[in-house]
Amino acid sequence: MYHSIAVTLSQTINHPMHLTDLQIAKATQMKPITQIAAKLGIHEETLRPYGKYTAKLPLKLIDPQRMKGKKLILVTAITPTAAGEGKTTVSIGLAEGLNKIGVQTTVVLREPSLGPVFGMKGGAAGGGYSQVLPMESINLHFTGDFSAIEKAHNLLAALLDNHIHSQKNMLNIDPRKIIWKRVMDMNERALRDIVIGLGGSAQGVPRESGFDITAASEVMAALCLANSLMDLKEKLGNIIVAYTYQDEPVRAHQLKAHGAMTALLKHAIMPNLVQTIEGNPAIIHGGPFANIAQGSNSILATKMGLSLSDYVVTEAGFASDLGGEKFLDLKCQYGGLKPDAAVIVTTIRALKSHAGVAIVNLKEPNPKAVATGLANLDKHIENMRHFTLEPVVAINQFITDSQEEISVIKGYCEKLGVKVEVCEAWAKGGEGCVDLARTVKAVAEGGLSNFTPLYHFDWSIEQKIDTIARKIYGAAEVEYSVKAKQQLRMFAKIGLDKLPVCIAKTQYSLSDDPKLTNKPTGFTIKIREFDIAAGAGFIIPLAGTIMRMPGLPSAPAAEMIDIDEDGNIIGLF
Amino acid sequence: MYHSIAVTLSQTINHPMHLTDLQIAKATQMKPITQIAAKLGIHEETLRPYGKYTAKLPLKLIDPQRMKGKKLILVTAITPTAAGEGKTTVSIGLAEGLNKIGVQTTVVLREPSLGPVFGMKGGAAGGGYSQVLPMESINLHFTGDFSAIEKAHNLLAALLDNHIHSQKNMLNIDPRKIIWKRVMDMNERALRDIVIGLGGSAQGVPRESGFDITAASEVMAALCLANSLMDLKEKLGNIIVAYTYQDEPVRAHQLKAHGAMTALLKHAIMPNLVQTIEGNPAIIHGGPFANIAQGSNSILATKMGLSLSDYVVTEAGFASDLGGEKFLDLKCQYGGLKPDAAVIVTTIRALKSHAGVAIVNLKEPNPKAVATGLANLDKHIENMRHFTLEPVVAINQFITDSQEEISVIKGYCEKLGVKVEVCEAWAKGGEGCVDLARTVKAVAEGGLSNFTPLYHFDWSIEQKIDTIARKIYGAAEVEYSVKAKQQLRMFAKIGLDKLPVCIAKTQYSLSDDPKLTNKPTGFTIKIREFDIAAGAGFIIPLAGTIMRMPGLPSAPAAEMIDIDEDGNIIGLF
Repeated sequence: MYHSIAVTLSQTINHPMHLTDLQIAKATQMKPITQIAAKLGIHEETLRPYGKYTAKLPLKLIDPQRMKGKKLILVTAITPTAAGEGKTTVSIGLAEGLNKIGVQTTVVLREPSLGPVFGMKGGAAGGGYSQVLPMESINLHFTGDFSAIEKAHNLLAALLDNHIHSQKNMLNIDPRKIIWKRVMDMNERALRDIVIGLGGSAQGVPRESGFDITAASEVMAALCLANSLMDLKEKLGNIIVAYTYQDEPVRAHQLKAHGAMTALLKHAIMPNLVQTIEGNPAIIHGGPFANIAQGSNSILATKMGLSLSDYVVTEAGFASDLGGEKFLDLKCQYGGLKPDAAVIVTTIRALKSHAGVAIVNLKEPNPKAVATGLANLDKHIENMRHFTLEPVVAINQFITDSQEEISVIKGYCEKLGVKVEVCEAWAKGGEGCVDLARTVKAVAEGGLSNFTPLYHFDWSIEQKIDTIARKIYGAAEVEYSVKAKQQLRMFAKIGLDKLPVCIAKTQYSLSDDPKLTNKPTGFTIKIREFDIAAGAGFIIPLAGTIMRMPGLPSAPAAEMIDIDEDGNIIGLF
Repeated sequence: MYHSIAVTLSQTINHPMHLTDLQIAKATQMKPITQIAAKLGIHEETLRPYGKYTAKLPLKLIDPQRMKGKKLILVTAITPTAAGEGKTTVSIGLAEGLNKIGVQTTVVLREPSLGPVFGMKGGAAGGGYSQVLPMESINLHFTGDFSAIEKAHNLLAALLDNHIHSQKNMLNIDPRKIIWKRVMDMNERALRDIVIGLGGSAQGVPRESGFDITAASEVMAALCLANSLMDLKEKLGNIIVAYTYQDEPVRAHQLKAHGAMTALLKHAIMPNLVQTIEGNPAIIHGGPFANIAQGSNSILATKMGLSLSDYVVTEAGFASDLGGEKFLDLKCQYGGLKPDAAVIVTTIRALKSHAGVAIVNLKEPNPKAVATGLANLDKHIENMRHFTLEPVVAINQFITDSQEEISVIKGYCEKLGVKVEVCEAWAKGGEGCVDLARTVKAVAEGGLSNFTPLYHFDWSIEQKIDTIARKIYGAAEVEYSVKAKQQLRMFAKIGLDKLPVCIAKTQYSLSDDPKLTNKPTGFTIKIREFDIAAGAGFIIPLAGTIMRMPGLPSAPAAEMIDIDEDGNIIGLF
């Protein structure tokens, strides 16, 4: 759910000097953001600064003419395990490596959520010597984008409840069929299921509701799929918040909410420019969930990167079957993007984990287990090829990895004709990713990819799901519950059947069963029901229990975070 | 509750050209914030910019040495009526006027809440030709201070519920005695009374709770009463969130929350520098409620203003009995501030309203009604003199005011020996406030004031309340409920009895009955119970029903707010 798990683990295992990410980040002398902008040909006057080291970029810098011929590199991964892979770290390291070999590159990433920062001890700004800076600021509020999204989301909720209470429910909304919850950027177990509007007739209409985490907001998904401010406004207006007593959908524009919501997002829609440890440009913007939403940064951020530099390296949440597929089918189709190569991040530890090795034994060399785990890597390689996208396997090296284990992967990839490189993004930054950078450049410029999405939007919903399930997950069949079938008929009736799909399922398996690691086969994907993101523009088939509001662990990271009188923050990893 | 009502009304009545505040604001050519900072002797490198026209000021610019001999002017008002007074507008106009006559002045104000922006059609950045800019940005998110405060507040709530759920309630908290709610910067009637933690044993412990608006957060009050970052951390640690089964208070530091809360407020604690329409410096920082909290901008903002310029003009919420008294007793004592003069804003319309004239008849000249309403003004003049603070009456002129009515006020003030000036802040900006500025300067420099607080912190709680009620409200006596008496004993037991008090009562009357306008006498102030802000550092005697979470009206302002493709916001007043 968060791309920080890998960082947390690697941090304790990988680095010889045992410096924390925060210590490494603090030891770096940052350049003023105006200098970073100058590298991209942006004049200081064009920036909207947020402190000395961060700036928002106006959308007018996005230029389709300047995007032509630029290279877009997707960084995806094998199926995550508790051992972690380090996709963000490799993305940053790869961008540093490309810049090191003379390729002007911007890394484009998601913004971290406060939930995991205070929960599971994880920032999400890379790790070790492959980080984006200023790390503390990026992890705490940053430029206020999440807060603006939260406010826009909750304004719609307030207008909805106010409509029922103060406007005599003119829209005939059935209070039992309100699907729009509220959001908060916090791990808030206690707000998952609540009853609101209590206290008598002056306090509104009592009903069941709840809070999701802000990253799960449809406003977040919409902002990240919008191609312009007006496109965003249209998307927000189309959000379905409830149904009437006659089961007609009620949309945000009927509550006259979308104008004010968009006004609240005036600055949030602008991508944020920061820098890597090595002083290269990084754009960080948006952070939708990778299960119920598309799981990658905004279309505008990616286009901004492509307008301003020759290469863009970007990542998508979880593995190729989740964030990867959604990046390619949803984001690329909505944004008119065409990636040129796909990096599949893998670790020796994760492959062993897929082979069933227990976490305590992962440090022991075990080439046989690595070979067994290759089945998982193999499926993700195959998946990229389903999109006619040439993969490059990046082995994110840990100090416990043995040469023999590395050879197992290399041999296998060579047999498949897939390029493979070891990289040391965490320990060495760009220097550790030069080989990977050269190979990625060769693949991107070799014309080996000819990106084609897996499906077209005008296919039926079932056809889209079926194609993803069989080709990408490796499922034998797809099964729909009675409720899901009813919903499919409803979608056709209210004109939602031409939307793309964003399947929500576990990230821990290619299947919908988290226990089936490595490369399961012969399984059935069970679609229990659908959620709708009619504003953002997709249908969400639910193939599992989806957590939209995480809880804090019994020892929350927040307890360790502190600040001294000079404003130095400690305990942030 | 919000200082915007006056602006809204005046806008439709007062201005000959019928331009909205937003139109006037947009027609103004702003200067880069670096130029405004330069006026205060601040180098560009010292600023933390937020866009081109806003910057945060580092606390190191606060310098007690440089504050010496500087003049602090409090702007307060007569008892508010539906007709409004325009305290913020007069504060801004006065600062413009002072600058016009060569006195280097900074106006220091509160930040607006999003609640009224989306609710009652009101921004809170002044009005007409006395505004602070950039108006749209100030009214929507600004520099994220409210969001940061909201997050810090809600992090404490999340840690509290998580403690009960995941940490086996080691602190022995009685879930029925949790007093810490959550906050949201939104008019959210439906969240006033809620039940959380539903859904079974994995979702936490079910209990009653609710949301207040962010301006009502104790974190807001604490931030605005803090003298440094470490002082803030101590205050946050002292917040009482609940009681144990044995009725012992449980504080934020016991949940290890205060470090992370303070880290979240790292930037929010820095005052924000913006500009007035006439290009003079304005500092806007913090926005605590004026009933349950102190109702004025932060101590740090006021000190910043005094460190950087010769005069600071600042306002306090509602009339002299609420924001005024709290400014003088709470803020000035905690901050070691010593005001030099007090401006009492009054309008002819409001005086007539106090005399019982209906709102539809307020435009008609009625000198007799004005004379009757003077009783209210008289009490506020007296109140300032209780603090040995020399008052200046500012008549905030409307075009419907007659010369005869103005003469009634002038004659009365002259009889009392109180300086009085007509000002036209709304229609003419600084030019309309030059006379007022000259008079305020003469009073501030004439040594007529010798500020002394009404009470000392080491008095008993009852003595403090009694003194305020009799001297400031004009009450005959104070009555305590049985519950209040029990709480008074508890305060002594847990060492809270030396805190100052922040009496929560209606703003519409000097008494605790909103229907008793003008100058009621012989009434009893009834203290029903106490709330505690042990972190911020005060006790809140409740003398009325206090609304901590407003609701949206039946036609919310949000419905009219929109944005065009160039990012121009419309419908914001």
